[in-house]
Amino acid sequence: MSNQVNGHQPAADSASVSAVLYIFGATGDLAKRKLFPAIYALWREGYLKGNFAVVGLARRPRTDEQFRQDVYDSIREFARYKNEDGSEWASFADHFFYQSLDIHNLEGFRQLNETTERLERQFDIPGNRLFYLALAPELFGTVSRNLRGGGLLESSGWQRVVIEKPFGYDYESAERLNRELGEVFREEQIYRIDHYLGKEMVQNIEVVRFANAFFEPLWNNKYIANIQITLSETVGVEDRGGYYDHSGALRDMAQNHMLQMVTMMAMEPPSRLNPEAIRDEKVKVLRSIRRYSNADEVRANVVRGQYTAGSLKGVPVNGYRDEPNVAPDSVTETYFAAKVMVDNFRWAGVPFYIRTGKRLPTKTTEVVVEFKNVPENVHFARKTKLEPNLLVFRVNPLEGIYIKVNAKQPGSGWGIVPVAMDFCQSCQVGLNTPEAYERLIYDAARGDSTYFTRWDEVALAWKFIDRIADGWRESHDDLYFYPAGSWGPEAGHELLARDGFRWWPVHGQDEGEVVWSAARPT
Amino acid sequence: MSNQVNGHQPAADSASVSAVLYIFGATGDLAKRKLFPAIYALWREGYLKGNFAVVGLARRPRTDEQFRQDVYDSIREFARYKNEDGSEWASFADHFFYQSLDIHNLEGFRQLNETTERLERQFDIPGNRLFYLALAPELFGTVSRNLRGGGLLESSGWQRVVIEKPFGYDYESAERLNRELGEVFREEQIYRIDHYLGKEMVQNIEVVRFANAFFEPLWNNKYIANIQITLSETVGVEDRGGYYDHSGALRDMAQNHMLQMVTMMAMEPPSRLNPEAIRDEKVKVLRSIRRYSNADEVRANVVRGQYTAGSLKGVPVNGYRDEPNVAPDSVTETYFAAKVMVDNFRWAGVPFYIRTGKRLPTKTTEVVVEFKNVPENVHFARKTKLEPNLLVFRVNPLEGIYIKVNAKQPGSGWGIVPVAMDFCQSCQVGLNTPEAYERLIYDAARGDSTYFTRWDEVALAWKFIDRIADGWRESHDDLYFYPAGSWGPEAGHELLARDGFRWWPVHGQDEGEVVWSAARPT
Repeated sequence: MSNQVNGHQPAADSASVSAVLYIFGATGDLAKRKLFPAIYALWREGYLKGNFAVVGLARRPRTDEQFRQDVYDSIREFARYKNEDGSEWASFADHFFYQSLDIHNLEGFRQLNETTERLERQFDIPGNRLFYLALAPELFGTVSRNLRGGGLLESSGWQRVVIEKPFGYDYESAERLNRELGEVFREEQIYRIDHYLGKEMVQNIEVVRFANAFFEPLWNNKYIANIQITLSETVGVEDRGGYYDHSGALRDMAQNHMLQMVTMMAMEPPSRLNPEAIRDEKVKVLRSIRRYSNADEVRANVVRGQYTAGSLKGVPVNGYRDEPNVAPDSVTETYFAAKVMVDNFRWAGVPFYIRTGKRLPTKTTEVVVEFKNVPENVHFARKTKLEPNLLVFRVNPLEGIYIKVNAKQPGSGWGIVPVAMDFCQSCQVGLNTPEAYERLIYDAARGDSTYFTRWDEVALAWKFIDRIADGWRESHDDLYFYPAGSWGPEAGHELLARDGFRWWPVHGQDEGEVVWSAARPT
Repeated sequence: MSNQVNGHQPAADSASVSAVLYIFGATGDLAKRKLFPAIYALWREGYLKGNFAVVGLARRPRTDEQFRQDVYDSIREFARYKNEDGSEWASFADHFFYQSLDIHNLEGFRQLNETTERLERQFDIPGNRLFYLALAPELFGTVSRNLRGGGLLESSGWQRVVIEKPFGYDYESAERLNRELGEVFREEQIYRIDHYLGKEMVQNIEVVRFANAFFEPLWNNKYIANIQITLSETVGVEDRGGYYDHSGALRDMAQNHMLQMVTMMAMEPPSRLNPEAIRDEKVKVLRSIRRYSNADEVRANVVRGQYTAGSLKGVPVNGYRDEPNVAPDSVTETYFAAKVMVDNFRWAGVPFYIRTGKRLPTKTTEVVVEFKNVPENVHFARKTKLEPNLLVFRVNPLEGIYIKVNAKQPGSGWGIVPVAMDFCQSCQVGLNTPEAYERLIYDAARGDSTYFTRWDEVALAWKFIDRIADGWRESHDDLYFYPAGSWGPEAGHELLARDGFRWWPVHGQDEGEVVWSAARPT
């Protein structure tokens, strides 16, 4: 076990992949922070061996040597594996190449194809090509056409394109984007990244649900009272003010990550655990989500907020409207909460409450399943205020699952208290959890699209989101302001209180009386 | 919370009890090891305040001062609270008195009554009298009659008698014993101790079952595959050879502790959480237990064994027949395992496997609920050998509950492994769990008979046990021998293997691949 927990178990030979990986936007932030470190980890774990090459592409001129130095610096700063001795590093860096490319210039793509053919011979790569577009979506169409025009899609192996969010601004723009991609690539060649789907504990939702007999009988509206998904951030918009002010929490978080988590929790068991069957079930959930039919329904079920000046951990921070590149009268929401109903037999009557926000007190992503409580006035409930049972998936930064149950007060008391039965994954000594991007690049390279979003998912998510955006457009007087460092506007709490519920404390909040065991015995 | 967890929270005034407590057998082992320390803990926690007195009774002459020294020594050696400064100790010890008593001599009881009346005046005790008979059962009748004859049952408060196991040797002797007690005491005055019922985690079974909506829906033959109860000891018979060789594991452990744990697990939710309603439900379980109808059925469902010479943790130990006061050709069982069926709607088809034994490799008491597994050939079960979910109550020496579920292999792997969601109560720093005897003495003093066995429970347990004893009497060729330090005879494993099950590892055994989280984050 320990080898694997520490992540030093080399992958079996059959598990490694052979491809040329093209990073469009190779001098950008995503490449530096996520992609290079992920590629390095895959190599360290044996999922990439000798037969791969990475080609960095951007407009800026750069030699292979300079590019390799960029990669080196990125890994030193961001990778969970640290660079080791020189010779090992060199044998990794030798796979990295750079080409300056104007993506509007077809000739550059022809050159790229020639370079590729040379690399494929050099590294014995069977024509597999993975195009990672870390670019603005407006450029997806041009790049796609020029990839085709440059002959890059005619290799003997597979060709796949990986694209980042945002995938459109609404249904209409997303559909246009998809059409452009679709002129060049088939749906099964397109890998739309939602990096939340690459997170360890999000993937664990599926395992916990379908590899355990314990949970499935309880997983429905007979036993579950509500499900709460929180994705809270402490950061503001940092240097992304321009993008964010246009997008807001609704498009930046809710349309993708949060609705994806709803579908993971709500979906029916798929017929098989293959990507299409799973995504079919997720699409069914998205189809069953009740769309708000007018602005009043949006107001009744959705809360938006924007942070004002405040403080986080004692440090004063600006209000949103004072952030760089944000309009001084911006009405963009930095907080979003909604009550989502899934109208099917399994979930009828069970609200899914979702919330996300910037400048909240703690950074955490958690999914809480609140079970219906024991009957009132029966047994212990007569004497004690019994809290309902919870099942909690801790996605980030803590990783783990726990169940909150009622038990005898430990020690002398005769009372009943909530205690946590806990599996804290990130507490494990030496645990080195893969980054979402590692899993997702690897999955794309081996052709597993389970944790990528299919076009019909994206389309349905936008159709749900567009109703909210439409509702908001009529007037902005439902935009609540909340001080940075608070848990968002009061209306976000009232949303649950109206149904007799409350947001359960997430990691970093005072959990009240829950008793945790201090440590494992040795 | 922390105060209560540490057990230093003083009991509310209303929670303290006022009584004279008589310890018959005050110079014996039980008094020294369990009763005095328990009384001291109750006093330290405020459940006994100024208005109580303890009268030690035995044949041996002893002054009050000598007796108080005995109590002091006992507490220093065995109590979970250590004696503190002199003045505090003195104010506790002042409540202890001794009278030499020949229990066949009525005059001594008359004196005892006079002493009692004096103590009741001195300590302002309203005539409540608790007679704790730490005596051989043959003496219960005599003591009871003399208590009545000496006038001790005529006080203005309540009178209760607490008796220790063994309560009879079979149904017939138990019934005779009960008749003798019944000539003097009403059933509701008789508190039959089964100290396993005083254990924290045994009591927690009730709380976990009835204070959580999570478990009740799963608590039946639709979801549970089997239930396993292990009560293993590392000790041999020590200086109890004379008693044990007569009793054996069947009467010493199975008739009382193990059947009681079966009833706690199996009982229907009672109409109310009061003692009679709970015991009514336990009786219903005992009535539903299928009795073996002949020796063949006993052999098919019950395994008995006796340890031979072996070693424990590297130390050689004698075989049972070489123990002091054991017959050299003894056929007494030191290991007992059985498959028990509860023939009712909830449990039809779910075996309860129980086992107990001496000279086993670890000392532990655990109850394991094995859930039916996910369907074969569905989803993850197709690729992986999925282990079934378990819910485990750890009673002793570790205290806690955990659920074994299948989850993603933590870290880099893509596999599925069993992980433990754990609440380890005894791991809590500073936790000082009350001894079973504390709870039980306090319960008897406040008149809560929930965790004492009622006559009809005892009677039905004997009727089940007698069938086994009858079956065994015909021949002894099913007595298997196992070396000390092993997990009992192979037949004990075959008992489950025949049904396609196995004993799950208990604390101290290699648990295989289960992943535990190392520690709680701070």
